Amino acid sequence: MDFSSFLTSLGTSFVIFLLLMIVFAFLSSKPGNNVVYYPNRILKGLDPLEEGSKSRNPFSWIKEALSSSETDIVAMSGVDTAVHFVFLTTVLGILVLSGVILLPVLLPLSATDNAVKTQSKSQKSSNGTFSELDKLSMANITAKSSRLWGFLIACYWVSIVAYVLLWRAYKHVSWLRAEALKSPDVKPEQFAIVVRDIPHAPQGQTRKELVDSYFKAIYPETFYRSIIVTDNKAVNKIWEALEKYKKKLARAEAVYAGSKTDAKPEGTRPTNKTGFLGLVGEKVDSIEYYNEKINELIARLESEQKVTLREKQQDAALVFFSNRVVAASAAQSLHAQMVDTWSVFDAPGPNQLIWPNLKIKYFQRELRQYLVYFIVALTIFFYMIPITFISAFTTLDNLVKYLPFLKPIVNIKALRTVLEAYLPQLALIIFLAFLPKLLLFLSKFEGIPTESHAVRAASGKYFYFTVLNVFIGVTIGGALFKAFKRIEKNPNLGEIASLLAESLPGSATFFLTYVALKFFIGYGLELSRIVPLIIYHLKRKYLCKTEAELKEAWHPGDLGYGTRVPGDMLIVTIVICYSVIAPVIIPFGALYFALGWLVLRNQALKVYVPTYESYGRMWPHIHNRILASLILYQITMFGYFGLQKFYYTPLLLPLPFLSLIFGFVCAKKFYPAFQHPALEVAANPLKEVPNMELIFRAFIPPSLRSEKIDDDRFEDALSQTSRATPV
Amino acid sequence: MDFSSFLTSLGTSFVIFLLLMIVFAFLSSKPGNNVVYYPNRILKGLDPLEEGSKSRNPFSWIKEALSSSETDIVAMSGVDTAVHFVFLTTVLGILVLSGVILLPVLLPLSATDNAVKTQSKSQKSSNGTFSELDKLSMANITAKSSRLWGFLIACYWVSIVAYVLLWRAYKHVSWLRAEALKSPDVKPEQFAIVVRDIPHAPQGQTRKELVDSYFKAIYPETFYRSIIVTDNKAVNKIWEALEKYKKKLARAEAVYAGSKTDAKPEGTRPTNKTGFLGLVGEKVDSIEYYNEKINELIARLESEQKVTLREKQQDAALVFFSNRVVAASAAQSLHAQMVDTWSVFDAPGPNQLIWPNLKIKYFQRELRQYLVYFIVALTIFFYMIPITFISAFTTLDNLVKYLPFLKPIVNIKALRTVLEAYLPQLALIIFLAFLPKLLLFLSKFEGIPTESHAVRAASGKYFYFTVLNVFIGVTIGGALFKAFKRIEKNPNLGEIASLLAESLPGSATFFLTYVALKFFIGYGLELSRIVPLIIYHLKRKYLCKTEAELKEAWHPGDLGYGTRVPGDMLIVTIVICYSVIAPVIIPFGALYFALGWLVLRNQALKVYVPTYESYGRMWPHIHNRILASLILYQITMFGYFGLQKFYYTPLLLPLPFLSLIFGFVCAKKFYPAFQHPALEVAANPLKEVPNMELIFRAFIPPSLRSEKIDDDRFEDALSQTSRATPV
Repeated sequence: MDFSSFLTSLGTSFVIFLLLMIVFAFLSSKPGNNVVYYPNRILKGLDPLEEGSKSRNPFSWIKEALSSSETDIVAMSGVDTAVHFVFLTTVLGILVLSGVILLPVLLPLSATDNAVKTQSKSQKSSNGTFSELDKLSMANITAKSSRLWGFLIACYWVSIVAYVLLWRAYKHVSWLRAEALKSPDVKPEQFAIVVRDIPHAPQGQTRKELVDSYFKAIYPETFYRSIIVTDNKAVNKIWEALEKYKKKLARAEAVYAGSKTDAKPEGTRPTNKTGFLGLVGEKVDSIEYYNEKINELIARLESEQKVTLREKQQDAALVFFSNRVVAASAAQSLHAQMVDTWSVFDAPGPNQLIWPNLKIKYFQRELRQYLVYFIVALTIFFYMIPITFISAFTTLDNLVKYLPFLKPIVNIKALRTVLEAYLPQLALIIFLAFLPKLLLFLSKFEGIPTESHAVRAASGKYFYFTVLNVFIGVTIGGALFKAFKRIEKNPNLGEIASLLAESLPGSATFFLTYVALKFFIGYGLELSRIVPLIIYHLKRKYLCKTEAELKEAWHPGDLGYGTRVPGDMLIVTIVICYSVIAPVIIPFGALYFALGWLVLRNQALKVYVPTYESYGRMWPHIHNRILASLILYQITMFGYFGLQKFYYTPLLLPLPFLSLIFGFVCAKKFYPAFQHPALEVAANPLKEVPNMELIFRAFIPPSLRSEKIDDDRFEDALSQTSRATPV
Repeated sequence: MDFSSFLTSLGTSFVIFLLLMIVFAFLSSKPGNNVVYYPNRILKGLDPLEEGSKSRNPFSWIKEALSSSETDIVAMSGVDTAVHFVFLTTVLGILVLSGVILLPVLLPLSATDNAVKTQSKSQKSSNGTFSELDKLSMANITAKSSRLWGFLIACYWVSIVAYVLLWRAYKHVSWLRAEALKSPDVKPEQFAIVVRDIPHAPQGQTRKELVDSYFKAIYPETFYRSIIVTDNKAVNKIWEALEKYKKKLARAEAVYAGSKTDAKPEGTRPTNKTGFLGLVGEKVDSIEYYNEKINELIARLESEQKVTLREKQQDAALVFFSNRVVAASAAQSLHAQMVDTWSVFDAPGPNQLIWPNLKIKYFQRELRQYLVYFIVALTIFFYMIPITFISAFTTLDNLVKYLPFLKPIVNIKALRTVLEAYLPQLALIIFLAFLPKLLLFLSKFEGIPTESHAVRAASGKYFYFTVLNVFIGVTIGGALFKAFKRIEKNPNLGEIASLLAESLPGSATFFLTYVALKFFIGYGLELSRIVPLIIYHLKRKYLCKTEAELKEAWHPGDLGYGTRVPGDMLIVTIVICYSVIAPVIIPFGALYFALGWLVLRNQALKVYVPTYESYGRMWPHIHNRILASLILYQITMFGYFGLQKFYYTPLLLPLPFLSLIFGFVCAKKFYPAFQHPALEVAANPLKEVPNMELIFRAFIPPSLRSEKIDDDRFEDALSQTSRATPV
């Protein structure tokens, strides 16, 4: 890619971004679109527009985003979102502080040297790889030059800035988490633990009695009740069918009410066919039919609930304590002499538990974990092959070479420039969209018991996938492809090495475009919410009849950490790795995170509704991955300096070790408090005596809840042995 | 070493062992020696001889040892000793079950082949390496022979037997530990935890107030009191001086009383000189002088105690709870959000705490640990060099070659045989006697807070030292030395490889003699207690004047796991590693552990008094080390089969992985219960309400104890905020 196509790419992206901005300013000012642009505020029962901003200035959202505090974020979107902003600001800080030193120092050093020109003159074979951007990169430094000292010091500067900011960030997130867990509000998950691997009950004792007597013996004063985990597959199915019919009934009633026009006050009773997809079978009155179905299903649900609670108990349970210090302590204490029985962990939020995974046995979980790691490793390894080919083929020159019939199209100058700018990046982005679902599925298969943990696990896998395949794959893959071609003529190891050194700055341009494309188009789409808006309006017009259906149509979902974090991580990796080789990338990276912060701030405050709260447990993962990027960068730099034949390259060797030690110290100092709640935090006084009955009921899955008040039906799996007075 | 010198060695050892047996039978039947042969029974207030055995049959100790149960051992010598017997029986079981199959199958396979003879015929250069024992080893199998199948299956058999027995042993030890911790007796350490890394107290609050308020907030109902750890160096010094003078006074009084004979009823008041070592200076009346000194020191002790308690507080404390479940849970819970503050662990027995180590800060401990690992690694590496030389030089042929003046001595036939048999082994044993002290010192330097833990750590280091240096050093070192000589003539890689294969069975004979020497002489000395007996009688006759001094003279000490376990471990490693190569070693190994069991059973029941109780925490270390030996064996066998050019050698590859998985599963299933007390165990009811005051006082070091009852002096470092009623 040459310089002009890079500028075209940048320009086009910026124009699209501006257009999306204008669209956003226009659309978001229409009150009819409030549910798309302010759903979080509406769901929280707030006025869509903030007090001060009646004017609907198209840029007022920027002012609002900038003036919002971390406390606002925690209040509106939870600790997890606040932690995501810590991530964005930390990376932004690293990039800005690096750029402030690196740009004014390294760019002049590169620009005034002329290795690239000399090289491309001497090696006539490789015309076209020379570009204006390469002149600003480290590739333009003559080998063994003492100018390399500047780059070496820059390597240290970036690392030290990263350490300092990461340390401060970890400390801050730890504080955020502690503050949230200290909260005097009663949170159900702070009074419960999950027990797995319950041993078989002895003859004449039910599983519930076993659990209750076990915990009653250990916590005679604070044990409240327990819920035995059941296999809810059947009951969930009936419950879902019931919910579906309830919706259909509401819809039929709304249709019926809508048909009562002035002209025809009695209305038309809606009808439907009972057969496949409502297309065949007997025609019936919908309202009557659905009512009938609902009554039938309620009866079936009740009997299935009884069967489930009595006969489908699994070897796992939720145990409730009337004191949150005891619950926090119980969640991290060893209960049984044999560790593969009575294993415990602290309960997550009620909606986060993955019930089917709770019953999986201790060693089976271990086994599944390694199996999944193995599968993921295979996936990462075999995806490498197509990625290598994509990066090698998706340059226009290559396409024309291998698919000559494209030549007439490509020869149109304007089209060619645009295609050249976008083709490789688009291919990559589309390619990466397939993966997250698979990885989330695999993570759940591991036996991970909570949603947030599964998302973290999937996001970790996705990170390693993107770094290994996209970053290393594109860099090395592209280089290898070029190398193969050249080596056919002149096979020689030194040739490969110098080619690699050449191709690193070459790929920098590729990634620069990738970053620019991602932030302009990505954040433009994100902010303007064009797609959800269109979907909402289509649904509203043609599908939704009831209030509930409408609400479902505009429900915004959550921030999607599972893909958002690794996506941003890839940018972090790219920008940090190229920060010294091609410092030009730093401003783009900084812009990406600054813009990302701004847009996401708006979205967090007004749009997205988090589905769960893990109190910042994402941070250690983010931290470790930034550190992994940093180590990758340090190793890359070590190799790259070696290729530049710099005599003092070994001076870079301490850096990766420094990073490892830093990571080790952070893990020792901060991590355990993310694994388990610290007791000093849980010991903070509550503002009211917890209502244990409410806490207990919060954990009963909806399909097992009964509308009747009496509790007798739950006696089988939900214990009632103790009703300690809460402390 | 040839066959006759091996037999001589064996014979001599056996004769010495028999002599020592007779000496033991004779000496132990004299009532005057009871304190040497039955100190544990005497200290426990039991009759030295058991009820049934009035006859003093010289072999009755064997009957008593065989008829004693594990419960007796736990009662007489604690869980740690019982665990040591589990170790001995497990290894014995592995060896017996292996031998039962390996001896009748492998020996005929070897004996009827003739590779050694062929080899020594074809290679005239290496005369003397051929011996009758080598004919019974795997070295006698012709390369590529299908007889090697038998040896391959034997490798699997030994491994599987080891897995099964180790699994059962771990389970049993875990049960032993649980039973001991479940005990309804009140044990002070079960009600206390140790807190380290206490942060600085805020202005206007003492450290004691900080600790008390911190734990009172978290455990409002069960927190009892705390002791702040102090720097006791000065107070200990005074206290030791005081104790010394008290002993001297008692001694002087005894001398004075002894001098009151019938002839001289008023007696002679003993005198001493006050100067250096009692040799110079003014001559004074001893009783008066010591009384004066004691009074002076008591006053100094009291004032120093006050200063220590007030001004020498450290950042560590002991915290007491009135409930042992709470204490067990507190010891394993994360208390602070920042993990390098308020770190906790479960208190060991009161006499086990290493007070000066408690104050060492979190990251300093980590640092020290890695530093020590580094030093130990260096030690292991550099000891390799002398060991290599010792094993190469300490054959008589070599000695004579390099020190020709020894020739006339060596030429005496009988002497030569004995020397040849013992020289290398003696050198090795003496050499190894230097190390344990250094390793224990290093382990304490790591900042390990309890005696038992330090012993475990030292014993681990000692194990790796002996295995790496003695076992691998002797085997490979000897081979290398031979190889160097031969390779000078014919440098060739295949030569080295086949030399190694040759030298492995060669060293087998060396180790066989080593094992035989160790068990006959070692256990003979152990049982007969010749050295302690002589020392005791000398002291009794010439030094001891008072009862206390006498008691000190016969006090037996403990079993010394720090050197006993790694010593036995070395034998385990040797025997397992050679079990298939030279199965002849198995009966010797089995005899070693059988005899060891018998002798130690006697010593545990009647002699040694354990100084601490760690409730079997030694076992995971033993387990891991047996497993390490097994892996070493499996790798050695893999290499050895390869040298024998056996086509199916890769079939041995799964074994080390199997061992790793086995170790992983054991660590997951059993280990955590050894790290922390399981709550279900601690929840067992107590037989009486614990006397918290006694528990609390048990942990005050003797130098800080006051003979006065009033507690005011302790107010500074020993908190008194709460006196909860114990549960």
